[in-house]
Amino acid sequence: MAKSHALNNNLGVDYVVVYRFATADKAKATARFEDLIRRLASVGLASEVRNGDNHSLLIFIRVTSEQHMFGEVYRSRVKDWIHGARSAEPSREVRQTLEQDPMSEAERLRIIYQLITNPESEGGAGITPKKGEWENVESVFALHDHVYNKEWIKKWSTQWLLKPEDLDEIRNRMGEKIAYYFAFTQAYFTFLLFPAGFGLFAWAFLGYYSSIYAIVCSLWCIVFTEYWKHQEFDLALRWSVRGVSAIESKRHEFKPTKHVQDTSTGETMGTFPSQDRLQRQLLQIPFAAAAAVLLGSLIIMCFGIEVFISEVYDGPLKSVLVFLPTVILTTCMPLLSGMLTNFATQLNDFENYETHSQYERALTAKIFVLNFITSYLPVFLTAFVYVPFGSVIVPYLDIFSLAVKPFAENEKQMTAPSASQFNINPGRLRKQIIYFTVTAQIVGLGMEVIVPYLKRQGFIKIKQMQSQRAQRNGGIVPSAAADDAPEEKEFLARVRGEAELDVYDVTADLREMVVQYGYLTLFSVIWPLVPVSFLINNWVELRTDAVKICVEMQRPTPWRADSIGPWLDALSFLTWLGSITMSALVYLFSNDGLGPDGSPQSIKAWGLLLSIFFSEHIYLLTRQGVALAISKIDSPGRQKARRERYLTRQKLFEESLDQTHKLPTLSEVGEKPSRTSLEEEARQGSLKTASPEERFWARQQGWRESAQIGRGYIERAVPDEKEMAKEKKEL
Amino acid sequence: MAKSHALNNNLGVDYVVVYRFATADKAKATARFEDLIRRLASVGLASEVRNGDNHSLLIFIRVTSEQHMFGEVYRSRVKDWIHGARSAEPSREVRQTLEQDPMSEAERLRIIYQLITNPESEGGAGITPKKGEWENVESVFALHDHVYNKEWIKKWSTQWLLKPEDLDEIRNRMGEKIAYYFAFTQAYFTFLLFPAGFGLFAWAFLGYYSSIYAIVCSLWCIVFTEYWKHQEFDLALRWSVRGVSAIESKRHEFKPTKHVQDTSTGETMGTFPSQDRLQRQLLQIPFAAAAAVLLGSLIIMCFGIEVFISEVYDGPLKSVLVFLPTVILTTCMPLLSGMLTNFATQLNDFENYETHSQYERALTAKIFVLNFITSYLPVFLTAFVYVPFGSVIVPYLDIFSLAVKPFAENEKQMTAPSASQFNINPGRLRKQIIYFTVTAQIVGLGMEVIVPYLKRQGFIKIKQMQSQRAQRNGGIVPSAAADDAPEEKEFLARVRGEAELDVYDVTADLREMVVQYGYLTLFSVIWPLVPVSFLINNWVELRTDAVKICVEMQRPTPWRADSIGPWLDALSFLTWLGSITMSALVYLFSNDGLGPDGSPQSIKAWGLLLSIFFSEHIYLLTRQGVALAISKIDSPGRQKARRERYLTRQKLFEESLDQTHKLPTLSEVGEKPSRTSLEEEARQGSLKTASPEERFWARQQGWRESAQIGRGYIERAVPDEKEMAKEKKEL
Repeated sequence: MAKSHALNNNLGVDYVVVYRFATADKAKATARFEDLIRRLASVGLASEVRNGDNHSLLIFIRVTSEQHMFGEVYRSRVKDWIHGARSAEPSREVRQTLEQDPMSEAERLRIIYQLITNPESEGGAGITPKKGEWENVESVFALHDHVYNKEWIKKWSTQWLLKPEDLDEIRNRMGEKIAYYFAFTQAYFTFLLFPAGFGLFAWAFLGYYSSIYAIVCSLWCIVFTEYWKHQEFDLALRWSVRGVSAIESKRHEFKPTKHVQDTSTGETMGTFPSQDRLQRQLLQIPFAAAAAVLLGSLIIMCFGIEVFISEVYDGPLKSVLVFLPTVILTTCMPLLSGMLTNFATQLNDFENYETHSQYERALTAKIFVLNFITSYLPVFLTAFVYVPFGSVIVPYLDIFSLAVKPFAENEKQMTAPSASQFNINPGRLRKQIIYFTVTAQIVGLGMEVIVPYLKRQGFIKIKQMQSQRAQRNGGIVPSAAADDAPEEKEFLARVRGEAELDVYDVTADLREMVVQYGYLTLFSVIWPLVPVSFLINNWVELRTDAVKICVEMQRPTPWRADSIGPWLDALSFLTWLGSITMSALVYLFSNDGLGPDGSPQSIKAWGLLLSIFFSEHIYLLTRQGVALAISKIDSPGRQKARRERYLTRQKLFEESLDQTHKLPTLSEVGEKPSRTSLEEEARQGSLKTASPEERFWARQQGWRESAQIGRGYIERAVPDEKEMAKEKKEL
Repeated sequence: MAKSHALNNNLGVDYVVVYRFATADKAKATARFEDLIRRLASVGLASEVRNGDNHSLLIFIRVTSEQHMFGEVYRSRVKDWIHGARSAEPSREVRQTLEQDPMSEAERLRIIYQLITNPESEGGAGITPKKGEWENVESVFALHDHVYNKEWIKKWSTQWLLKPEDLDEIRNRMGEKIAYYFAFTQAYFTFLLFPAGFGLFAWAFLGYYSSIYAIVCSLWCIVFTEYWKHQEFDLALRWSVRGVSAIESKRHEFKPTKHVQDTSTGETMGTFPSQDRLQRQLLQIPFAAAAAVLLGSLIIMCFGIEVFISEVYDGPLKSVLVFLPTVILTTCMPLLSGMLTNFATQLNDFENYETHSQYERALTAKIFVLNFITSYLPVFLTAFVYVPFGSVIVPYLDIFSLAVKPFAENEKQMTAPSASQFNINPGRLRKQIIYFTVTAQIVGLGMEVIVPYLKRQGFIKIKQMQSQRAQRNGGIVPSAAADDAPEEKEFLARVRGEAELDVYDVTADLREMVVQYGYLTLFSVIWPLVPVSFLINNWVELRTDAVKICVEMQRPTPWRADSIGPWLDALSFLTWLGSITMSALVYLFSNDGLGPDGSPQSIKAWGLLLSIFFSEHIYLLTRQGVALAISKIDSPGRQKARRERYLTRQKLFEESLDQTHKLPTLSEVGEKPSRTSLEEEARQGSLKTASPEERFWARQQGWRESAQIGRGYIERAVPDEKEMAKEKKEL
């Protein structure tokens, strides 16, 4: 009972700040701590302190008065509206606004988090976890709502498809950024149903490398990417977060190099000239090249060894040596890519972006390049190097024979076969794809659950060591729970647990999905069952991710987003590239007589290039068409936005015009006023010596007179009906 | 004196309506006419009627009261602001607005024109010249301001470059749409300076088909298109017309097929489902195909004949027959393309667009297809059919020998040479380009001045005949000027003159420029002097167009636009295509050893395709980069917009927040309130049996206490300085 109570109730705590002082010296730690508490109070946040595990304090934070909370929410909403993020103007009456569109938990938590972390200049407490003077502030996190989490997992694990309401629910709990991830994965999952079905059919009846499958699949990819763009925008409107990235405040790490006067606001502000940034960004080119070379050469080497051992080498220990490349890859690859990722991050820091979203966008692009190489290069090698040129290259592989000399008894075991007798093993490509799209996916799924667990254990160890060290130096180490009030024990224990948890990074999950999509659009023609495997995988993925967030991670701070951001570009790029690889693969390997069935002799370069040229341009055309067609589709979000914008405009229009109402519109001026005004002029004209203009306009008084005079002209000019009729006969 | 007076003074006339009744029967004509005058009066427009040439009436229109005029202007400006076209909110005080940003002539004329033509539902007089019940209303036009025109032409013909102010001047006189044409031509002209210089250099030192020239030129084209996009947007902000097309009212011709309730406004309105339109738009594909076939076959035929006669045929009359294809082309082509243009227009009507700009955009696209075929196909034929496959095709050309048999004395004069002995004439391609880029340009320039003149004469004839017919039927035909007041004679004569003038169509001029640009980006590598020729041509073009508008055309009604519209897409498309053709041409014809020097034998299909593949993708990359770089450039227009938007937002923000000011922001809540509120809670907690939550928060009262307790924890946990120091040493 008490347990469930402790689980189900957060005692009104909004955020928990973990303050770890083990590493700092006492005086500093104490001073900082007091400063921290004072600052929190200064922005209207009440705090309660409790003891934490291993030399840490838990600071519980909650808003002092709901009144002020509402004020903040209202301000942020008005700001959103003015910047166009929400299309409806919040009603001028605060209470009313919050009734019309009640504050979601995510909104509340976001605003409080900003209060804690925003710089004091922007009315925050300026507390930046783990950064600069606040390095002792280990984390700032909200407490899980276990009741909701239980429901959530229960619901999803029993539900076949997710409804829009489910996504809204996530958005209200976790914020738009995470909601977007689930929305995307869900859309992707539902879209996969068709290619999965068609894939099965193709596998059964069309065989591998079927041009029909390739066309259908590419078409599907185009429709999917374009549809998602449409969908994404719709969600942005539905959740009224359109263009929120524009409202972002500057990053703490942003270093202005120049102080210029802002042309619009007039106040001088620190900026970083975009030319300088552009120069720094140019470093990406050598970086990408270096990464390609490093990772590429590693992959190529292992690839070479593998081919050599499996196809050329025929000595003893073959059974063992076969695993050599796998061993090398699994050991070196993570190290290398980890290294490069670090470097990419440093490069990104160096590029010195102003807002967080800019920073993330740039970083994602870099990470994507790395992922692209590690994920797809092996397949590219097999498909476009090994197969076409295998017979040319393989003979040179006996450089490796040096490596295996010791094991060989006699020479002939490693004399490479001449091009003629050596023949390529086309099954290799399929094996590879199956590995990447089935084995790797399952492994990945497993890792997502296991790795964080191990990591957590590791951290706990480290912290214990730290505190033990402190202990050795004579500090009395009280069990954290020692002086907990009995009624709080359960609760505090739970909080201490959550404090140890990992922080959830949504972009990692998004990346996973996009890379997976890559295999589909680039290579699925090799093995049409790819979408089937993905379909199953993603159904599970969606659920495990939910579990991961609830159980293995701290409750994520709800951030806003109006798109899956840079991953969208990645999607389009992969789809485009797919139009090239698919056609190339079909040309190279299809056995339907059209192309040369993967035997290098009969490949015609121009044939390959021509098929690529056509399929790419057909792709570009189709994309245009699909985009146009989809853009015509209306959606609830768009309707909502239109309606709200219309009403707001009406309101504004009224406001601006109310004072012009006294002067009537031209159309309200009937004939009479105009007549009289003309007569007026005429009279004046006759009185004093009038200007030619006055006289010109005075000739006819009012419209009746002009009409009558005109009639006169017509009378005189045109013959009357009878003769007209007569004439008609004549003609 | 009087003359100049008549020329320089429009007697306050805003618009002239020409009402021609020659063709209609009397009663109807009279009734319509009265209705016309009445309607004009009803929207506050005063009218004066005078006699016009050949059975027409001149109705002079002016606004009754400036007061109302201001009201209308203010309304339209508020509307613009609310729809985001202008970033500054017009000040709530009408007079003030008009002082801050005085009404330009274009603005005034536009609004009056809309008053005349808008449907009565939208507060206009609903007079639609030449359409439906108003077929007798021949034209509605404003009078030229000859004083200004004189200055304008004088200024431009003496000025080497046009300044932004000159463009603003045009915008204030002729409206944004025409201003955009001049802005574009001007930008294009200035940008041409570089390639012209480089072209000269290339022509002198690099020779024809130089890959260097191709690269530089393509690069320049990319920069130009991207720059123009940037510039265009800047102008839209500078002239505050951004997105005006959204404010447009429906076309008169738009036929709604379905009446649905608008989700935003709630009122039922007639729409045309976009699916239906999409279906109708699909007709464009067969249309384009048909056009291509028709025009193509004509061109191919003439091309064939020409090649046959000039290269194969060697009989008598050759000198005469050489002109045969030219004759056929010059006679058939205009007919055919005219026919197709009509058809395209009908197709466009059928597609039933809601707004005028949509309609125009669609029509332009269609016209562009036609122009593309007629302008570029001949060159494509020579470059990519005649040269590579000439030796294969030409022998078949002796089908034409049938046509010339009669002239030939003996057989052997027209036996086609076998592939071996026949060799292609590479000069042909250059000749063609020179024709299109020099001769044709000059001819075109001439036509622009002469054709309208002839047309005008023609119309006058027709009208005279009409009136003569009317006369034959007994109508007395008074000389129009018969009963003019002496002081008005000059003025009326002038007006009658302008009434006969043509209506200026800016898109035609824009098309000319874009087509010209096409030659540059597609083929200029053939003859590097192309840009030089264009540079000269366009300097003249800019001036002659000015003259044309002033002298040969009625004063154009000032329309608004926020872009050169569909032509922008045409530009990008041509630039893209250029990246393909240029590389292909260089590969096919360059003599620098890289490629086969235009002799068909040595051309390698894969080489051609590879060079295309690379250059196209390099193009796409470069465009990305250039677009990015240019997007960083700031511009006055953007700064202005930012500043205005900022101020407006400030204002709105104040307005929305003024009532929340009573409740203080969180940051205003110092420590005290929070402390007291906590004490309050605490007291309650002790009074009644408090909830666990209340007790939890009551343990520490105010931040000082929490701080102090936290200090306590730290004290107990961490050893004091000395030992810390000692420990440090130990490590």
